[in-house]
Amino acid sequence: MKIASVTISDRASQGIYEDKSGPAIMAYMEQAVVTPWEKVSCVIPDGIDSVRDTLLDLCDNQKVDLILTTGGTGPSPRDLTVEAMADVIEKELPGFGELMRKVSLEEVPTAILSRQTAGIRGSSLIINLPGKPAAIKTCLDAVFPAVPYCLDLIGAGRIETDPEVIKVFRPKGA
Amino acid sequence: MKIASVTISDRASQGIYEDKSGPAIMAYMEQAVVTPWEKVSCVIPDGIDSVRDTLLDLCDNQKVDLILTTGGTGPSPRDLTVEAMADVIEKELPGFGELMRKVSLEEVPTAILSRQTAGIRGSSLIINLPGKPAAIKTCLDAVFPAVPYCLDLIGAGRIETDPEVIKVFRPKGA
Amino acid sequence: MKIASVTISDRASQGIYEDKSGPAIMAYMEQAVVTPWEKVSCVIPDGIDSVRDTLLDLCDNQKVDLILTTGGTGPSPRDLTVEAMADVIEKELPGFGELMRKVSLEEVPTAILSRQTAGIRGSSLIINLPGKPAAIKTCLDAVFPAVPYCLDLIGAGRIETDPEVIKVFRPKGA
Repeated sequence: MKIASVTISDRASQGIYEDKSGPAIMAYMEQAVVTPWEKVSCVIPDGIDSVRDTLLDLCDNQKVDLILTTGGTGPSPRDLTVEAMADVIEKELPGFGELMRKVSLEEVPTAILSRQTAGIRGSSLIINLPGKPAAIKTCLDAVFPAVPYCLDLIGAGRIETDPEVIKVFRPKGA
Repeated sequence: MKIASVTISDRASQGIYEDKSGPAIMAYMEQAVVTPWEKVSCVIPDGIDSVRDTLLDLCDNQKVDLILTTGGTGPSPRDLTVEAMADVIEKELPGFGELMRKVSLEEVPTAILSRQTAGIRGSSLIINLPGKPAAIKTCLDAVFPAVPYCLDLIGAGRIETDPEVIKVFRPKGA
Repeated sequence: MKIASVTISDRASQGIYEDKSGPAIMAYMEQAVVTPWEKVSCVIPDGIDSVRDTLLDLCDNQKVDLILTTGGTGPSPRDLTVEAMADVIEKELPGFGELMRKVSLEEVPTAILSRQTAGIRGSSLIINLPGKPAAIKTCLDAVFPAVPYCLDLIGAGRIETDPEVIKVFRPKGA
């Protein structure tokens, strides 16, 4: 089982500021996921090519089961994560973006500006998270209960979680 | 007025298990729709070609007004209903999928894994429902109030319902 | 700063009935936006070509910052605003359509029939509003708090509002 964080930010990738989002994702995973897993982390610049090439490598070569991106989902000219996703995913899961925007909207009205989505490529699930650590937690709390069953369905590795941190849901018989 | 249920399932189409979803859809329609209508039912395997060809035949040849599919909207490799929909519909109605996921999410966290949508081809409205009978009722209860007016707008047949079962809504003057 | 209303209606464009939707949008903007802005208004027929050409002209030639369309987002054969949008926008912002349908759904069950969306072309933000003045206000009340920050991010003009009418939100440090 491999879980990757992909921080997508021109400034973080140039070392202009410290990446706090990738580590926030990994800290969440360390708390939540109790079955063994291997960590992969990247910090890359914004841009369709950089995001697409990184996601393709993580899916096809490194066989990462769960890929969590952070950044690049807004309306700014350099926000191109969603455009790269369109080149990479074979199936979009629109319910992830809908739910993440809904829960974020309870915190900030600008949540509707996020174009974040999720999708599947082969046996990899890719979820776009916001750039800010607080918003990352809000979104993961909302969608993570459905992630382990999704990974089961696409033939990825099996995850169990600490129910004190996050309860996962698998339908009866699954 | 014709209403079709399309059960999309490799196992049901091979007779490995009994189709309970198509009959659940038809039982709902029999209770809800009081104006005369003709029933069409199919059970077909998963797959882009089988779903696309069936939907095209129901829309273009059989002139079915309302087509309710069940199954094939999840993230599994053989869930290809949504891919077939993309080949068939001329207009997508994203509000149906959003609302069906929202009401399903009140029952199970894995509702966000559903890619179900709705769309129009000519004078036919196609709505993707979940595979499980209980979830079918949840979704129909949520979206059916808007279905008769949608059928009016696209030039399909007129539906009246039993308001004890489901109340339809048509804007004043419509 | 330029703000445009685009009324999309065969009948209004032929003078068969008076356009009340464009003026309703402009009355809202006059109440809400306190920084200086220039008004642009058009009334055009339904149809992919008419809507696309008008939107392209407003974005590329007239450099309008904020374009608010009304009409043409339903399921009827002549409702083609969304098809024209697909030709014009470079980035879709799905959160706008989701939220506008959600708040409209609290008023009428047929809100799920609306295909309205929003998107960006260059430094212009385009938002599809419903046809009816009451529904226009419902939608603008819901999404407008995020509009000024969106305009900041795409390099459009800066808007300040009367907080008694509508409170805008910009993240701290923005």
